[in-house]
Amino acid sequence: MAKQKKQPRPKAQTPKGFRDYMGAEVEERNAMLGQIAEVYRLYGFDPLETSAVETVEALGKFLPDVDRPNEGVFAWEEDGDWLALRYDLTAPLARVAAQYRNDLPSPYRRFAMGPVWRNEKPGPGRFRQFYQCDADTVGSASPAADAEICAMLADTLEAVGIERGDYIVRVNNRKVLNGVLECMGLEGEGTRDAVLRTIDKFDKVGEAGVRELLGKGRKDASGAFIEGVGLSAAQADPVVAFLTSKAASAEETFANLRVAVGESAVGAEGIAELEQIAGLLEAQGYGPDRIEVDPSVVRGLGYYTGPVFEAELTFEITDDKGRKQQFGSVAGGGRYDDLVKRFTGQAVPATGVSIGVDRLLAALRAKGRVGGGTDGPVIVTVMDRDRMAEYQAMVGQLRAAGIRAECYLGNPKNFGNQLKYADKRRSPLAVIQGGVEAERGVVQLKDLVLGAKLAEGLTREEWAEQPAQVEVPLERLVEEVRKMLDRTL
Amino acid sequence: MAKQKKQPRPKAQTPKGFRDYMGAEVEERNAMLGQIAEVYRLYGFDPLETSAVETVEALGKFLPDVDRPNEGVFAWEEDGDWLALRYDLTAPLARVAAQYRNDLPSPYRRFAMGPVWRNEKPGPGRFRQFYQCDADTVGSASPAADAEICAMLADTLEAVGIERGDYIVRVNNRKVLNGVLECMGLEGEGTRDAVLRTIDKFDKVGEAGVRELLGKGRKDASGAFIEGVGLSAAQADPVVAFLTSKAASAEETFANLRVAVGESAVGAEGIAELEQIAGLLEAQGYGPDRIEVDPSVVRGLGYYTGPVFEAELTFEITDDKGRKQQFGSVAGGGRYDDLVKRFTGQAVPATGVSIGVDRLLAALRAKGRVGGGTDGPVIVTVMDRDRMAEYQAMVGQLRAAGIRAECYLGNPKNFGNQLKYADKRRSPLAVIQGGVEAERGVVQLKDLVLGAKLAEGLTREEWAEQPAQVEVPLERLVEEVRKMLDRTL
Repeated sequence: MAKQKKQPRPKAQTPKGFRDYMGAEVEERNAMLGQIAEVYRLYGFDPLETSAVETVEALGKFLPDVDRPNEGVFAWEEDGDWLALRYDLTAPLARVAAQYRNDLPSPYRRFAMGPVWRNEKPGPGRFRQFYQCDADTVGSASPAADAEICAMLADTLEAVGIERGDYIVRVNNRKVLNGVLECMGLEGEGTRDAVLRTIDKFDKVGEAGVRELLGKGRKDASGAFIEGVGLSAAQADPVVAFLTSKAASAEETFANLRVAVGESAVGAEGIAELEQIAGLLEAQGYGPDRIEVDPSVVRGLGYYTGPVFEAELTFEITDDKGRKQQFGSVAGGGRYDDLVKRFTGQAVPATGVSIGVDRLLAALRAKGRVGGGTDGPVIVTVMDRDRMAEYQAMVGQLRAAGIRAECYLGNPKNFGNQLKYADKRRSPLAVIQGGVEAERGVVQLKDLVLGAKLAEGLTREEWAEQPAQVEVPLERLVEEVRKMLDRTL
Repeated sequence: MAKQKKQPRPKAQTPKGFRDYMGAEVEERNAMLGQIAEVYRLYGFDPLETSAVETVEALGKFLPDVDRPNEGVFAWEEDGDWLALRYDLTAPLARVAAQYRNDLPSPYRRFAMGPVWRNEKPGPGRFRQFYQCDADTVGSASPAADAEICAMLADTLEAVGIERGDYIVRVNNRKVLNGVLECMGLEGEGTRDAVLRTIDKFDKVGEAGVRELLGKGRKDASGAFIEGVGLSAAQADPVVAFLTSKAASAEETFANLRVAVGESAVGAEGIAELEQIAGLLEAQGYGPDRIEVDPSVVRGLGYYTGPVFEAELTFEITDDKGRKQQFGSVAGGGRYDDLVKRFTGQAVPATGVSIGVDRLLAALRAKGRVGGGTDGPVIVTVMDRDRMAEYQAMVGQLRAAGIRAECYLGNPKNFGNQLKYADKRRSPLAVIQGGVEAERGVVQLKDLVLGAKLAEGLTREEWAEQPAQVEVPLERLVEEVRKMLDRTL
């Protein structure tokens, strides 16, 4: 080891906006990702794992036209090339679809799960590294591909433990809105984006709020003034009509949409696609209790070109301040026909979905669907450090029987510390064998689930008197431990 | 979508030194990591997942004393702080152990699996992002902790499919070598490191080569001259004696080591620890066919302070050029008592192991333990695009029965393309239903495993004549598909 130089000690700190995941948090997420992967596989999607690092050029959107590209990505220069951490799983997919286009099956159906990084200001519950879990079909223009993604999303939510009735997958089509704008003579890109952003706020600000935002502007709750799009009330009417066109039945909704798009060809095309999607889903038994057409769904991302969808959890949770609120969106996606074209010049139709892993996991926790079990190891305590080999032999027997177990490896002098350790590890059971027990060929088994509240500060003698402790012959160690575990778990 | 500006198209390319993993590659790795995690859990280790990004300060070793820290890590400046991608899983563990020291159980036993990044010149089979899979016990000075890691390593190798006899876990202790150097009066840090590096080459250059390297130097195979450590032949003797002290039995080896360390206290301590480790392992049935003491094991990393171990696969593989060679090392580790001290000033004893995931996976592939299965989805082909809902209904039935299936979602016009697609997906079976079959309420099931060689260029009529194709009633779709899959898989 290098000689310690006189310099200040480094700070042991997770970088700002990042966090560590431990124990059950990791296992619960992995278990959920495993369940999702199973559904994605069942649907015929194949896994893809790209590296965390991409060229800034391939990522697009964030080109290094300034000294350092710092708009939303973590980027750095490397031998003259700009590299960056991926900010989503779609940009790498577009790169892969272009790079291997001669070898990949077409359509290329892939799923991907892994962390993505955003160089954004961190906030409460808002981290700069988080998991996404995507599935996409690249190379299919068929609305059947969009319908399938919606069906899979519903199946996935149920597979991880969200019950039917607790979620809704909502489908819309950007083309319908484009038709509405076309029919109004408002096709400019800037206006369209501004209208999209406004519609996206419908959930929060309601119809009146949207009218204000489409017009002159609006004061938000904090009193700040939000600039409006600048449409007249007459111009805003068709947008609001579109936005509120959801009716009791899909048929009525489609009739309302037809009025809203007027003579627009793109609008009619969008409605036809939506009808096809709805028809396919209906035929497969995905009724409006699970998947519905809802014209108020926009999805922020600029690159969507057709159908868009999102999954919302409809049950209420209680927030930090004790207020009840809807859980909200946990997944979204849509059709983006132009992403691969960036690389190849050829349009490649693609559609897909991304699940917000952390939000979905939070929802499952809120519903009590994950977490809470005692899953720590059985702890074989050390009464006599010269008999380490015998304690290890006990551990070996337990492990050979598939029982999670370990020998206490800290300083065994203070028996209380061993029990505190078992407590911190959420251990269900401690095995204890002192010299006297060893001579008699027995061990003590202590049920820590029952004993937990009494553990602190007890001497070994007091401990032995608790009814949760039993003495068993050493040769019956495995079966007696299993019996106790079966009782307590 | 933003208007396409006239600018060169971005290159669709994985950044230099990085790669993409697809399909079976991802699944095989995940399956192996799952098996490893199961053993680690069984041994009582808990998962930890830190973020990819650390402060350069916390990572250590690569402090930003130059404008950009570019020694081996990917690093960048962020609002005045230097951040970097982790280069291993041990440095983040040391940070975590220090950061949460008041809350973590002690000992803290954690495992971690995930990618790490090295800013090194890429080469064949040498990537800048790769997986590691570590388990460590932080806060235990007991040789029982080291012994346990060795036993777990052996169990892990067997769990993933390396048979007993195809691997050996070798154990040594840095303190013994330090004792040898102390006994020679060569305790200087520079000399010690140079001797360590030389010993590490024993496998490649043999005893004579080591003698040259300890002395004046040596010409390597390419003719380049490697500067020697500069010891006299007499000074080199004890080092070589140490290095070759492995004997037929552990007892003899220990006797040889005792001679090599002479009067050195640290050397005697190292031997005592090794004896304790060997004794514990022996008592648990891990004989020298699985784990042996071998004084030639050094492990390059400077931070090891006591026992070191490595797992080597002992079978031969045939390399690219048809030459047979030993597979070599797939895992290594040791005791490092000073890493947490960097942060806290207090020494915290720690020991652990890291498995080279990609090398181990390559070994399993070489042994035919993973890969090779047909696991593509059943493809329901599209003969008539107006009956998409019916095809999707078939897919739905198959999926509901747990059979991986999908409907062909590309342009269905060219039936040959559908079969080529099924082929690329390694699909075991295609379902075919044209208008005539639909009227008769039947489907054709085509066994693609048998039919694969004939598939290219066949018309549908020729295809139907192959014996691998059967016609079954639609209502028996699921059971007939399952029957055919059971036959072919």
